Order: sequence, then structure tokens, then C-alpha cells
Amino acid sequence: MRKVAIIGVGMTKFGENWDKSFRGMVTEAGVKAIQDAKVKGDEISAGYVGTMASGSLVGQEHAGALIADYMGLNPIPITRVEGACASGSLALRQGVMAVASGLHDLVVVGGVEKMTDLDTAAVSQILGGAGDQEWELFMGATFPGLYAFMARRHMHEYGTTEEMLASVAVKNHANGAHNKYAQFQREITIEQALNAKMVADPLKILDCSPITDGAAAVVLAPLDSASSYTEKPIEILASEQASGTLALHDREDLTSIKAAKIAGQNAYRKAGIAPKDIDVAEVHDCFTIAEIVATEDLGFFAPGQGGPAALEGKTKIGGEIAVNTSGGLKATGHPVGATGVKQACEVAWQLRGEREEAQVEDAEYALTHNVGGSGATAVVHLYKRGY
Amino acid sequence: MRKVAIIGVGMTKFGENWDKSFRGMVTEAGVKAIQDAKVKGDEISAGYVGTMASGSLVGQEHAGALIADYMGLNPIPITRVEGACASGSLALRQGVMAVASGLHDLVVVGGVEKMTDLDTAAVSQILGGAGDQEWELFMGATFPGLYAFMARRHMHEYGTTEEMLASVAVKNHANGAHNKYAQFQREITIEQALNAKMVADPLKILDCSPITDGAAAVVLAPLDSASSYTEKPIEILASEQASGTLALHDREDLTSIKAAKIAGQNAYRKAGIAPKDIDVAEVHDCFTIAEIVATEDLGFFAPGQGGPAALEGKTKIGGEIAVNTSGGLKATGHPVGATGVKQACEVAWQLRGEREEAQVEDAEYALTHNVGGSGATAVVHLYKRGY
Repeated sequence: MRKVAIIGVGMTKFGENWDKSFRGMVTEAGVKAIQDAKVKGDEISAGYVGTMASGSLVGQEHAGALIADYMGLNPIPITRVEGACASGSLALRQGVMAVASGLHDLVVVGGVEKMTDLDTAAVSQILGGAGDQEWELFMGATFPGLYAFMARRHMHEYGTTEEMLASVAVKNHANGAHNKYAQFQREITIEQALNAKMVADPLKILDCSPITDGAAAVVLAPLDSASSYTEKPIEILASEQASGTLALHDREDLTSIKAAKIAGQNAYRKAGIAPKDIDVAEVHDCFTIAEIVATEDLGFFAPGQGGPAALEGKTKIGGEIAVNTSGGLKATGHPVGATGVKQACEVAWQLRGEREEAQVEDAEYALTHNVGGSGATAVVHLYKRGY
Repeated sequence: MRKVAIIGVGMTKFGENWDKSFRGMVTEAGVKAIQDAKVKGDEISAGYVGTMASGSLVGQEHAGALIADYMGLNPIPITRVEGACASGSLALRQGVMAVASGLHDLVVVGGVEKMTDLDTAAVSQILGGAGDQEWELFMGATFPGLYAFMARRHMHEYGTTEEMLASVAVKNHANGAHNKYAQFQREITIEQALNAKMVADPLKILDCSPITDGAAAVVLAPLDSASSYTEKPIEILASEQASGTLALHDREDLTSIKAAKIAGQNAYRKAGIAPKDIDVAEVHDCFTIAEIVATEDLGFFAPGQGGPAALEGKTKIGGEIAVNTSGGLKATGHPVGATGVKQACEVAWQLRGEREEAQVEDAEYALTHNVGGSGATAVVHLYKRGY
């Protein structure tokens, strides 16, 4: 298998993009990534796109063909992949496999979701399809409720506090304030987070990622030819996916996501690096508890230490490990199919040294962690500065 | 790249499966395929599943993780892919790539759709998402209407008649009568087809494939180890996908599907065979006109000769080339995400010589042709008896 590099990245502003269509956003991100890679459209020979629920959200399935058409890339094959909120990373993984195998040289990977055309209740119902529809959604469990179970159990087992949860939101809003693509580019205080309206006890509105429109894209190439396109290729060291039970009630443990641990361990082994080597990580903070669990599952902190680490500032830029420098799902927003690809864009910018106020000094190794549903799909990618 | 073989196949009965769930059907098909392949579940290291619109149809996204869970295959990665009615073939193609690249040895590929829980109008609306939602579906064009445009133009250009269209339905019902998995296991007469209720002129109800529940699955292995599992491996010679414009009105020509021609030509070139070598073909007859166009696009007949060929019986079992020996989408039914995988099951059975009354004598080479939307995605696979 060949080594693979990211040679171009691009994304739309995330937010309530009422003036932009589903197809317009993914085309915008794709064209930006292709321009950033300085390749011509006809050099691209395949594509993948992640979108979770375009059929339910905007009535449009068949997003792969749509993108080939609207980006002027016909007749190359573009394939949509879906794994709930991990759809973007699954698209990236298929793209990595296509280049690594030698089947394709230049591949474009996109992620997109258009969510704000429906009301919140309808969107919650649709997002519930990422969990076990027959045994969770039908019984009234939407995602804030499922993650609230995980939060309560984590608090019970480890003494994690609401203040620790809130500190994740405060950090991610602080990071988002320096991200021109973020839905929320403003800081919040810990008091605001703690006093925000309750959604599903103990998760308040500021513990939850928002509903968002947006798209992101990357261009992949074989590492050995990447430097002919860009001065700053980003090597993808590992691309690992694992599955867990669809329903939360089937898990042995609610304080950890087994699929994420497996994907992470496989990725570290494949790349030959350890959690301590990671300089910057984008993790799946759909809720604040999810970031705490992620930093434990990925080996940055011992089980139960993710909360205190967040409270003590160890995950800030300049701390032990910079987590969610983009602002995470919390502040950047969470257009579900786009999130995994946005994470790749953010770490690429970090490893290229282009994140200005939010730059992690001398970042060399990065990780992205993208979770579908309450953890039934987890995808971990590892990256290295390739120049 | 390694050569790839099908070592096991399985499917559910297609039809109005009101007693079977989405997850139950895909699990049934997957377990049958794994049993047929005589492999153990823990030998499988990855999976792909094609489903077009499970989110809209049954409220369940995240089908990959669901299948890993319900088939007891956790924690291996299973990924859902979607390309409208070509979703099943796209899943097969991803599986072929995963084995060909050396990344995985044994891969399970499924296709599934559960469509009959909603009324026909709702399903038509959802299926419309396979076309251009903004420019076709919003304007009232559903799929019978789009294919009716193609039929009318084909009649205008080539003199294709309603009787020629009807003869496709008659043949496919005759074949379906010998398929225990088919939704319609009964013959029809040409008079019945010609006098059936009009849907979208000139397409009558018997020119249209039905709304169907069902699932199908195959197990893939490297060809060089396939014979350790099965006495009758089926080699996959080529797996090609191409894209066309999403909307019909953007096409240069309504009498042909460009993406299917490109995918077919690429597949023949890759396999080093020609249309005349094909003994049995499963083609995408979502409407009778689609089979006529397919037999021309794939080079079995010259442009304009597909209609006369059907009328003259050249596509019957025992004719020049046996087309849709399963009964096609018309009689077997069309659970959209399952169709591409069902086509692979049918040609595998044919090449194994196991189709009894519907067996094509001494079948050695086979083709499957699966189309998404009105032709924006087309996937062609070529197969060879591998023993």
C-alpha cells in the first residue's frame, strides 16, 4: 500500500447558511480544496462524499453523482458514504484506501450537511436515526438524552463535575473565537455554561453542539508525488474504523466508547506512535461529555482524568495537548456529514502552521476522532507534517 | 491489485415483507451468504452495505454499524454506501476494491431496502431524491415520468414500439416465474402488458418495476484463496463506475445513458472481453425502456435495435444473450439498495450452474448493470466462472 498525503483543503463557513444550498456548499468546499491543491479538475480521478441524511434533510439522495455533475467532474466515479456523524471520516477513509491501493492518484473527498431548513424537532428526529431507531428513538431517546446517560455514569464512576463539562465548552468557544469558519466566534464564561438552559440533565444548551449547515473537502495524493503539488503535504499515517453496538443499552460500559478505543489503538499501532506524540487533536465533542470521554479513550488521559484535565486547562492551546483548536463541534458547529472532513482541514492547517492566533507551536503530529451515533462507528486518523 | 472472487451468496425473498424488518432482512441475507461461503464470521474483516434511503423509508441511518451489531461482526468496520438505485453495486465495488488492494481478505457486501411500510406517493417522493431534487422533483417529475421521456424519444428516433416495451415485461415475468425469490412468480401476456393502466405515457403499470422489500449479500475473497472455501468461485473481472448528469434535461441524448456506456466500455477493456462473450446479463430494467436502452448501451445490440431484439426473443434464455434471467427488477422486484447485490447473486448462481429451470446453458461470462437515478450513476461488473 502506498503512503497518502493531503495536498489541499477547503471549507465553507459553518453556520445557518440560509443563502447557500446543499449542492452549492459542497461545490464551494470542493473547488476551494482543488484550488488549494493547485491541481486541475481533470487530474482528479475519483471522489467520495460523506453526508448523513441529505435524503431526509433536503430531499436529495445521490450526492456523489450530484457533486460529479456540479463540480464538472463527470464521468469520474464519486461515491457517497454514510456512517451517521462519522460520515465525513468514512469518506476520507475510502479516499485514503483508493489512493493507498494504487487504484487512483488524485482523489477529492467532501463532507456536507444542510440542516437548518427544518425545525429543531424534525432535525432531532432525523439525527435519532444514527442510534437504534427501533429501541432508542421509538422510545423517545434523542441524542442529548443518550449522551446525558453517559455523562451521569461518568460523574457517578469518576466524580466528573458539571464544571468540568462546562470547562470544555468554555475552551472550545475560546478556540472558535479565532476560527473564521466557525458558527460561534465568541467566548463564553463558565458561569454562562453552568447556568444555561437544561436540555437533558446534566447537559445544558452550552454542553451541546449546534445544528449547522456546512461543507468541507480535501484532496488526496500519493505521498511520493505530493511535493510536486504543494510545499506542505500532510501525511496520513493511519486511517482506522471500528464498530460498536448501535444501542447504548447494549454496552458493557457507558463511560467509554469501545469502538473509539479500538480505532485509536489500531491507528497508533499502525503509525508506530503513541498518544504522547500527538500535538493537536480534533475530537468529536458533540456534547461536552463526549470530549472528556474521547480524551480518555484516545489515551491522552487515564480513565476518569479527562474531566479534571479539561478543568485544569491541559487541553487548551499551549497545554499538554491542544484539543479542538477549531472550536470543535461545539463552537465550529456540527453539519454532521461535514464534521470529519472539517477535522482533517483543521489539523492540516495546524500542521502547515497556518492557524495564526490558534496555532499550536511546532505541531508535528495530529489526530482526528469522529464518532457516529452514540459510538457505533468510530474513525481515527493520524497525520504527520510531511515536509 | 489482486484478483477477487465471489465465494458465497444469499438473499431474502423479495416482496411485500411485512413480517420482516430492515435489520432482519439484511441480517438474513448476510448470514445466508456467509453460510454459503462456508466461512466463519470472525474470518470476515470488513463489510459494505448499499441502501438508498433507509433514513427516509424507515427512520434508520447508520446501517453499517447496525449490520455489524446484528450480525455479531463487531468491531469490524462496515460502511454504508449510497448511489440511489445503484447503491448495491457501489457496495460491491467498494468490497472488490478492499480485497483487490490487499487491505482485507474476506469481505461481506450487502444491499437492502425496506420500502412497503409507506404509501406509494411517499415512496415516489423519496425515490425522486435519486434525481435532481431542485430541478426535477420540485417540478413534479417522478421516475416514471423521467423514463417516459426517454421512452418517447427512443420511439421517435428509432421506431421503438409499445409492443417492444411490453415484450420486455413478458420475458421478465416468464423468467421470474422460475425464481423462488421473486416478488412476482407468474407469467403475463403481451395483451395484459399493453392494456395495463397507464402510469406515464407510454409506460403502463406493467412497464414499471414494483416497490419491494428485500436484501441480498455476497462474500468476497482473493481469487487465489477462493478455492479453499468453495468449489465454484466466481471471478470478478471488472468493477467500473461512471457518473453522468443528475438531471435528464442536461443530457446530450435521451436515448442512451452515457455513464452506463462509459462504465461498460471501461469494464470490457479491463477484462479483455467483448459484449459478444457475455452469456448472461442482469441489467437495470427499472422500466421496460431501461432494459432496451441497457442492451444497446452495453453493446449487445446496435442503437435502436434493442426493441426489435426484445420483441424477437433474442434476450430470452436460449436466445442470443440471456438478459434478466432472475426476472429483472420488473418481476423479482426492486428494493433499491438490494438490487445491485441481487444481480451479483443471480449471475453467481448462473455461473455455478444452479438455476435449474432458468439455467443458461454452459454460462461462462456474465455482466451486471446497475443504474442510479435516471443514469447519473452507472456501475458495470463482469464475472467469469472461476473453476
